[in-house]
Amino acid sequence: MPRRVHHIVSLAGCTALLALAAPAAANEGMWMPGQIKDIGAALKADGLALSPDQLGRLDAAPLNAIVSLGGCSAAFLSPEGLVATNHHCVQGSIQYNSGEGRDYLTNGFLAKELGEELPAAPGSRIYVIEDLRDVTSAMMRGVTPRLDGLARYEKLDANRKALISACEKQANRRCDVRPYYGGAAYYLQQQLEIQDVRLVYAPAEGLGNFGGETDNWMWPRHTGDFGFYRAYVGPDGSSKPFAKENVPYRPKSWLRIASQGVKEGDFVMVAGFPGTTNRLRTSDEVLFNFAEYEPLWQRLLSDYATQIDKVTAGDREAQIRYASILAGAENYEKKLAGDLVGADAIRLDERKPAEEKAFRDWVAADAARQARYGADIAALDAVVIENNKASLTGLRTSLLNRAQLLGAARTLYRWAKEQEKPDAQRESGFQQRDRESIVDRLRQVERRFLPKIDRQLFEAALVEYRQLDAADRDAKFEAALTQIGFDRLYGETKLGDTPTRLGWLDKPASAFETSDDPFIKLAIALYAGDMESEQAAKARSGRTQAARAGYMKGLMAYKQAAGLPLYPDANSSLRLTWGKVMGKEKDGQIWTAFTTAEGLLAKQTGKGEFNAPQGAIDAIRAKDYGPYAAPELGTLPVDFMSNVDITNGNSGSSTLNARGEFVGLAFDGTLEGVISDWAYVAERNRTIHVDSRFMLWTMDKVDGAQRLLKEMGVTPVASR
Amino acid sequence: MPRRVHHIVSLAGCTALLALAAPAAANEGMWMPGQIKDIGAALKADGLALSPDQLGRLDAAPLNAIVSLGGCSAAFLSPEGLVATNHHCVQGSIQYNSGEGRDYLTNGFLAKELGEELPAAPGSRIYVIEDLRDVTSAMMRGVTPRLDGLARYEKLDANRKALISACEKQANRRCDVRPYYGGAAYYLQQQLEIQDVRLVYAPAEGLGNFGGETDNWMWPRHTGDFGFYRAYVGPDGSSKPFAKENVPYRPKSWLRIASQGVKEGDFVMVAGFPGTTNRLRTSDEVLFNFAEYEPLWQRLLSDYATQIDKVTAGDREAQIRYASILAGAENYEKKLAGDLVGADAIRLDERKPAEEKAFRDWVAADAARQARYGADIAALDAVVIENNKASLTGLRTSLLNRAQLLGAARTLYRWAKEQEKPDAQRESGFQQRDRESIVDRLRQVERRFLPKIDRQLFEAALVEYRQLDAADRDAKFEAALTQIGFDRLYGETKLGDTPTRLGWLDKPASAFETSDDPFIKLAIALYAGDMESEQAAKARSGRTQAARAGYMKGLMAYKQAAGLPLYPDANSSLRLTWGKVMGKEKDGQIWTAFTTAEGLLAKQTGKGEFNAPQGAIDAIRAKDYGPYAAPELGTLPVDFMSNVDITNGNSGSSTLNARGEFVGLAFDGTLEGVISDWAYVAERNRTIHVDSRFMLWTMDKVDGAQRLLKEMGVTPVASR
Repeated sequence: MPRRVHHIVSLAGCTALLALAAPAAANEGMWMPGQIKDIGAALKADGLALSPDQLGRLDAAPLNAIVSLGGCSAAFLSPEGLVATNHHCVQGSIQYNSGEGRDYLTNGFLAKELGEELPAAPGSRIYVIEDLRDVTSAMMRGVTPRLDGLARYEKLDANRKALISACEKQANRRCDVRPYYGGAAYYLQQQLEIQDVRLVYAPAEGLGNFGGETDNWMWPRHTGDFGFYRAYVGPDGSSKPFAKENVPYRPKSWLRIASQGVKEGDFVMVAGFPGTTNRLRTSDEVLFNFAEYEPLWQRLLSDYATQIDKVTAGDREAQIRYASILAGAENYEKKLAGDLVGADAIRLDERKPAEEKAFRDWVAADAARQARYGADIAALDAVVIENNKASLTGLRTSLLNRAQLLGAARTLYRWAKEQEKPDAQRESGFQQRDRESIVDRLRQVERRFLPKIDRQLFEAALVEYRQLDAADRDAKFEAALTQIGFDRLYGETKLGDTPTRLGWLDKPASAFETSDDPFIKLAIALYAGDMESEQAAKARSGRTQAARAGYMKGLMAYKQAAGLPLYPDANSSLRLTWGKVMGKEKDGQIWTAFTTAEGLLAKQTGKGEFNAPQGAIDAIRAKDYGPYAAPELGTLPVDFMSNVDITNGNSGSSTLNARGEFVGLAFDGTLEGVISDWAYVAERNRTIHVDSRFMLWTMDKVDGAQRLLKEMGVTPVASR
Repeated sequence: MPRRVHHIVSLAGCTALLALAAPAAANEGMWMPGQIKDIGAALKADGLALSPDQLGRLDAAPLNAIVSLGGCSAAFLSPEGLVATNHHCVQGSIQYNSGEGRDYLTNGFLAKELGEELPAAPGSRIYVIEDLRDVTSAMMRGVTPRLDGLARYEKLDANRKALISACEKQANRRCDVRPYYGGAAYYLQQQLEIQDVRLVYAPAEGLGNFGGETDNWMWPRHTGDFGFYRAYVGPDGSSKPFAKENVPYRPKSWLRIASQGVKEGDFVMVAGFPGTTNRLRTSDEVLFNFAEYEPLWQRLLSDYATQIDKVTAGDREAQIRYASILAGAENYEKKLAGDLVGADAIRLDERKPAEEKAFRDWVAADAARQARYGADIAALDAVVIENNKASLTGLRTSLLNRAQLLGAARTLYRWAKEQEKPDAQRESGFQQRDRESIVDRLRQVERRFLPKIDRQLFEAALVEYRQLDAADRDAKFEAALTQIGFDRLYGETKLGDTPTRLGWLDKPASAFETSDDPFIKLAIALYAGDMESEQAAKARSGRTQAARAGYMKGLMAYKQAAGLPLYPDANSSLRLTWGKVMGKEKDGQIWTAFTTAEGLLAKQTGKGEFNAPQGAIDAIRAKDYGPYAAPELGTLPVDFMSNVDITNGNSGSSTLNARGEFVGLAFDGTLEGVISDWAYVAERNRTIHVDSRFMLWTMDKVDGAQRLLKEMGVTPVASR
């Protein structure tokens, strides 16, 4: 699943605003921890063995064993800080540690002892929640109803930065404030930021990514999508950057491995950090998205993938460098295609306006309601039109950063300009607290960049950029490009050299302004236009927040009146979803709930994306499953399917049984379910999990990871 | 399924060569009529109610009701010459008759009476078998073992032309001679060529092509892929071109509609004209195909589709003109991708060499066998290497004809050059008997050509052409192109005008040689090189035939010794395959054997490829199925699946029950089964049929085609 890097937001207390009603449709909903008590009856009815009060607590198991990796979810599985997540969430760290004679991606990686555990890729973090609170009133301080547009945006931004800054005065803490229900509420979370993250174990890519892009979003699935990190801290227990003397972190709690795996019909739940959903968007936003925005985006990504394929053809080095960019483009293109097909299939263009009309009719039917919400509804409709237009322009404009050195130059110059202000007044993303992630990004270029390839992709991006109306293009940029001459860009720039590129960080803006580097010249040419667009976007954002917060309060009142549940759209904060292990039937086809090792063997071709390691193949042929076979199946399960409600960002989320024990990891959905990001449809929505028994079997029978099994409280069968 | 236009070959008598053994693997095999007696026991064991003798007869029902449409299969369904086939086989005729206010593609077409039946697209034919015979000895007359290369090719070609010419002395007959088992045997067939073909009825595209490209090669499937032609002849019963006074042809027999449809497990058989399989190719040919040929071909087609998409983007007229070329490229690209994935999945690269080694070891183990077959095996291996290289070059060279006007100019000039010889000595495809199809092809350009689009596609094709080594490119052509200048081609040619283009037909070569038309100049520049390549290809062909015929005789002896069956590879001649109605299971997924009307409704989006007409939707919502519901399903079946063994060219084949009655039409396979063209794998191979009950329901309840139902002996429920 596509991953987005967000910081998490989670919730302990819950205002009356959020405690609305029990869910009408079972299994729909990504619920905030504070809402669990409200859905407790439904959870119990479906089989939850824990008390909902226990489950809702952030300072107790199982929720305080759940962690974020930034773009992925994960959980502690041992008292020694062992963290389980998806293989695709640790893949960057596997690649980072691979090299000549150490092809950990192909062969897998297993640290035989603590001392062999390897530093994860630069920028890897484990975030552990420590505190959180409703900061709506602090955020709204000075934000009067009449404060609109840019002024409103800036006031909210200043309040947010002040809250964060106060929170981050504590060492090693990462704090954030996020809006819920379109800004009708705000929460601040405080996390311990673990900086020393190490790669402990990952199976061979042939298991961890078995089926590859072909099977992505598909069922039947046979991917062993799991891997392990470990959190390390200083000897004194405080968060420290990587150091030899660091020791494993001892989490407050960790998940126990279920002694028996799940079977069809069993209660399961998933706790993690879903990234983004758009279920509460207005009808105009949804219609625009599916008529214009996503079709264009999909086409741009599809063309981009084709371009990369073409310009790297026959050049193995280029293919390797651009592999992750290509995979990202293809993966998201497939997701967008699924969105578009799904929107048609569920007739979203009729469903959404009908739903919204019911709400608006309800408002209009009552003078008091009309007085309270009417103006905000009209204001939101007006600003949505502007937002829509700007987002189309922004999509094409963003293509300029496909020239990686231009992207780097823009970041560097912007950093220089922001440095001229006091830290608190700097733009978010360019404050001192962001410096390290900027360094990581600037450094990353060296592993995914080749001038001759970048040049061709930039040329193609310019063709798309030039489709914009002249008014939406940047005349200064175009003039600068003409003056420099496209052909000189790559010959003359020095930014392709990593020390040179990093050396520009912290130089004053004046140094940039006298530079001859062509990409720096382009970045400077773009700067004024970028600032202008940004100010306009902020003004729209201020207006949108004011209007949407009012609109959402109306929607919440409407739902409450109807006794319907309302959970906020996903925003990378901790959420819980539950459901049952189940397959899926449609006319002509039945998906059974489990896949098995024999099915993996049937797909095995021994090459490409279907190339499980020989050890696994031999053990499957020998049916050497030990205690890991499922009695109901008579064989080893690989993956299973459930109807829990997840999205991107949930990758790596632990799957828990009714007692809160670990039974697997969520790692994907199905293509026909991706439309759930816009509208939940129970019969289409399914989640794919790797079964804990397949994980344990791989560790025990294939990879010899008995050390880790014992640490997790599992008695291995094989011994090494 | 992809369609190729071939002329059919069928067989009455059967030499000892062809009557080998009963099939080892049930349901594998595209059997010649003359082989049916040999597989009769297996057919009876599986449930055939007819006698195998009856089924093998070409002068009796059911086989003499089966006809060819050229690239598709079909059958008579009434004594009045009504012919049922697939919607995609009559689609060209629907398009041909559509126009302003007559959107028959979208709305469907139904002739209310005979007089309303419309002429099919130019070139449409129905071929009815009249006679056939083994002509191996006539073909081999003068073809001594020592005659090799070009001389052998030319002798075989002369013998073939003489046989055809003698046969076609009878009016309105189309005759052909085709090789079986790589030229170990030859058969001549004589067909009545019905020239007046009329479009009688086709459902709306929303049923006939429901699911479109998305569902192509897929299951679950809900496509009502059927349509009807009628054969017309002169009042005297002889074949005549379209004329008002023509009357329906009265076939010798026609299929009866089964009074009950099929259910899971029922015996079914399919008789039709499968186009091409390659199951008897040598290991070197297969390995080359999957390592080099098909990967390149797939990439070229995929790029071509992308190019067409790109250059026609935003231009509706261009999109319409290039729609069929695009659909053809996409369809075949998907089939090739399926081939490549399938070859990996079944490990064809291990399977095929192992099979072949067993045969070669058997030959080598015996001195007499080695003496008889050894030299031919070695000779075939040697010429295969040359053939492989030539086929890669040919693939890129063939791209030049993507410039449609260049293709036309080459055909026209070649025609002029061939006209200089007596008809019998002209190249096949350029004899008097081929003139009409050439005219059709030259005319067709006008409906699928736009200069600005053609130009861009030609430019892209030239990029690929120039990847060839200089020795494999045509220096004269390249010099001519440079001299003319690419930019002048489309501005100066007159060949884009249809009367001008057709006006060149029959002009002498000298007229071409003094023409200033740039495409004619290019065609002339290419001519010498084309002739050289053709002579080389003929020489290889002569050597290949000599070696392969010997090789195949060895293979047949080997199979006979092992008691294994051997049917010839598909070559567009009449074949019979049988099996059972059955779904398919794999790990995690079950395909059930039938899809239903409710499943169609679930896919309906009301737009794009999932847009069944309102009348059908209303009738399904009302569950107005009349007598057409299947008792076992409790609802109306749409499509069903079986394990019969078909390939391209079988499109439109009638599906028969154990009594030889009509129960549906075969129209597609599944993507994981397409590898069967190279190696039959029972567990992957499935065929998709439209159920006769869905056809009858559509005719009765949706389209009001009661006239046709009555003609077919079915009593309609609705009345109009």
